[in-house]
Amino acid sequence: MLAKLVSFFDNECAGICVEPILVGVSGGPDSLCLLDGLVRAQKKVIVAHFNHQLRPEAEQEARHVSKLAARYGLPFVSESQDVRAFAMENKFSIEEAARKLRYRFLFSQARNYGAQVIAVAHNADDQVETVLMHFLRGAGLSGLKGMAPITRLPEFDPDIRLIRPLLQTWRKDIDEYCRENHLETVQDKTNLDQTYFRNRLRHSLIPEMETYNPGFKQALSRSAESLTGDFQLVNDAVDRFWESSLGEIGEGYLTFTLEALQTSNPAMLRNLFRRAATHLNPAVRDVNFEAVERVVRFVKAGYAVSTKVDFIDDLFVFGEGNRLFIANRYANIPVLDWPQVKQPANLEVGVPVLLGGDWSLLVDENEGIKDLVGIASNNDPFQAWMDVELILGNLHVRGRKEGDRFQPLGMPEGSLKLSDFFINEKMPSRRRAFWPLVCMGDEILWIPGYRSAHPYRITGSTRRILHFELSKISFQ
Amino acid sequence: MLAKLVSFFDNECAGICVEPILVGVSGGPDSLCLLDGLVRAQKKVIVAHFNHQLRPEAEQEARHVSKLAARYGLPFVSESQDVRAFAMENKFSIEEAARKLRYRFLFSQARNYGAQVIAVAHNADDQVETVLMHFLRGAGLSGLKGMAPITRLPEFDPDIRLIRPLLQTWRKDIDEYCRENHLETVQDKTNLDQTYFRNRLRHSLIPEMETYNPGFKQALSRSAESLTGDFQLVNDAVDRFWESSLGEIGEGYLTFTLEALQTSNPAMLRNLFRRAATHLNPAVRDVNFEAVERVVRFVKAGYAVSTKVDFIDDLFVFGEGNRLFIANRYANIPVLDWPQVKQPANLEVGVPVLLGGDWSLLVDENEGIKDLVGIASNNDPFQAWMDVELILGNLHVRGRKEGDRFQPLGMPEGSLKLSDFFINEKMPSRRRAFWPLVCMGDEILWIPGYRSAHPYRITGSTRRILHFELSKISFQ
Repeated sequence: MLAKLVSFFDNECAGICVEPILVGVSGGPDSLCLLDGLVRAQKKVIVAHFNHQLRPEAEQEARHVSKLAARYGLPFVSESQDVRAFAMENKFSIEEAARKLRYRFLFSQARNYGAQVIAVAHNADDQVETVLMHFLRGAGLSGLKGMAPITRLPEFDPDIRLIRPLLQTWRKDIDEYCRENHLETVQDKTNLDQTYFRNRLRHSLIPEMETYNPGFKQALSRSAESLTGDFQLVNDAVDRFWESSLGEIGEGYLTFTLEALQTSNPAMLRNLFRRAATHLNPAVRDVNFEAVERVVRFVKAGYAVSTKVDFIDDLFVFGEGNRLFIANRYANIPVLDWPQVKQPANLEVGVPVLLGGDWSLLVDENEGIKDLVGIASNNDPFQAWMDVELILGNLHVRGRKEGDRFQPLGMPEGSLKLSDFFINEKMPSRRRAFWPLVCMGDEILWIPGYRSAHPYRITGSTRRILHFELSKISFQ
Repeated sequence: MLAKLVSFFDNECAGICVEPILVGVSGGPDSLCLLDGLVRAQKKVIVAHFNHQLRPEAEQEARHVSKLAARYGLPFVSESQDVRAFAMENKFSIEEAARKLRYRFLFSQARNYGAQVIAVAHNADDQVETVLMHFLRGAGLSGLKGMAPITRLPEFDPDIRLIRPLLQTWRKDIDEYCRENHLETVQDKTNLDQTYFRNRLRHSLIPEMETYNPGFKQALSRSAESLTGDFQLVNDAVDRFWESSLGEIGEGYLTFTLEALQTSNPAMLRNLFRRAATHLNPAVRDVNFEAVERVVRFVKAGYAVSTKVDFIDDLFVFGEGNRLFIANRYANIPVLDWPQVKQPANLEVGVPVLLGGDWSLLVDENEGIKDLVGIASNNDPFQAWMDVELILGNLHVRGRKEGDRFQPLGMPEGSLKLSDFFINEKMPSRRRAFWPLVCMGDEILWIPGYRSAHPYRITGSTRRILHFELSKISFQ
């Protein structure tokens, strides 16, 4: 046991495990074995105990750990919280609530003491149980690889590392160590209630699986090690792809380049979106296959299937042109680079009107017909030309209104509901409310960026032309 | 079922599944469903049946499949082999023997018919059982990802693809399809004897696991899909690393550049060595973790731990300088690029002696001392200078002999066993037997590439110098 511990610090943890090390000590065999081992390995440690208030003996156990720390001559910190109440309040399971409060405590104490490392006592049997749980619920690589010997939990702290020096040590060796060294362990009775599922695995399913392969636990521990390595290879590949496909990192949102995503394979996308979810919400613990597949399908279809898809938790995804947005509900996504009109404004020939987002709308009149061919072949949707003689009322620009209809160029009869036109044109929904519409009375003459109205088009009999242009103001 | 099948051909298999398709048909529900589905999807198919001779009804089943093929109006091929005898002869398990003979038959028939694709009827339940078997024995990613929907089996054919169109279809849906379409299936009784282990999984362990998660099978099938994608990402990374670290591909061996391996992480190395094993021996099915770890340790230690390590099957690994060799016992590893002397030869001043591997040994005399500084600072171990006046006997070059000792330059007194010198110098063992030694009588004066003998060195009182040079002959 001790040799393994020392080897862990000399090899895997070398250069990482700077002292002091904050050790989470419950008082059970695992954590006492870890603590004793660290002391014998002459590490500078701080003992930290978290009282979950879940059992009557909890108070007594806290005192026991405190006394032990004193006997070793080590600094001791503890905290007590009503985990059950916290779980109820936040609709967490007891286990989830316990985990959150415990790690919150450990990381905050590590910061207090300037510790860069927190040691916890997960053992090889815990690892097997964890992997098996993930297996039962159909996890991907990140679950099946099990717990890492050295990791970070960015939801609690971006820098402080969590280490698991006993992850390769079996429970029976820990128990033996405790016996041989006369460590006074407390019986952790939570095992028998809070973690019923895990206990059923431990006492029933795992022994059952050992009838198929007596070396099952060792085999699974080895699998986890191998998968951890492969997970790292996948992560390295995802790192590179992230770099090359990421557009912006904003407040509560990320963008990726659609082209980069569409030319990539689904496995890479799945990993990318999983990472994006964790980036936006470090507390996301299980980005399930279905959630990820929804986004992959959305991307592969070029956003065509819908304007917006739910991702996971409060995250959603939408596309705009070449950008895929992954955002949370509170994201501050910029709309400033679109033309937006919050107040209606009159339009007069020759007088530019300023719109939100630093756009300018100008109407001017071309005397006589100058360049009909140029007009006919125009590809710039931010310019339009109309027959002056058909414009009989005052022009103004405004945002959309209930009941708006539109007769786009190329549709000789009837009209569409504006909302249908927007959908047909795949206008991102965020753009719609304040998108500028050039109107005469209630009639829409031009939707900049999209289409002008059929009735006002230039024809063979047009004599005078009105020219509209919407352009972004350059401030140099 | 049919819709899924058609979608498989239109999507995953598009552009790959050129017709005709050879279909392996046992007569059980899975293969009859597959056959019927392919016929309805209007694929051009050839029916292939392999008789394992494992059960009394086997003959009758072969006739049944033949009749069915006739009823569909399809070409039919079959073969009958004594699987049990083949297993005994080759010390294979019955399952392994059956697999080998069956695939050997299917691939050879596919070649006969010019089919580029073989379809087999593995279903989603088979997939779950396969993944669970791998899980029980502690497989890595390549096992846990399960069977691939489209793959190659290079041990049988490098090009022809094996496809599994029913891999996402559950057994119950297949049975239902067979009932609805009145397919006359044969009861495959091998299920009840040959594949006892798999049947125990099916009828006992999987239902047990479903008590932990009722959606276990679906979850596992989804896991397999996700891991398949990640396996592809890992493979892509290994491809790149293979390209950059591979030295030579020879007959029965490969070499890699030590530096490239030593700067890489263990996970990448594990995958590289697994691939090397499969490259050298396509029939290797399970390159286990321990075998791979042995090689990884050997590399990480810079070959220091031993001169040669066993890898897996008949493969072994050794290092020479910057090259790591992975080879099988019959590998034709070139020694030609080393100087080798199989026959002793006399050395005369000015007369070059040709050695094996196109090397030439020349002794010449420098009258007077020309460049003592140059000699002292020489770094070329394939040149040596000695004091002529100390050379009192005839010179010759030979390979090593029992009892050889050597007093290397820098060792003023005593001598070493030549074998110890070789070990100290880390001379690859394959080089040793015929490495040229320049001798005077029984005394070794120079070991080209390594060291000259201390007693014959140039000193302040040297007046005439003998110059030795071993060089590779260039043939332009």
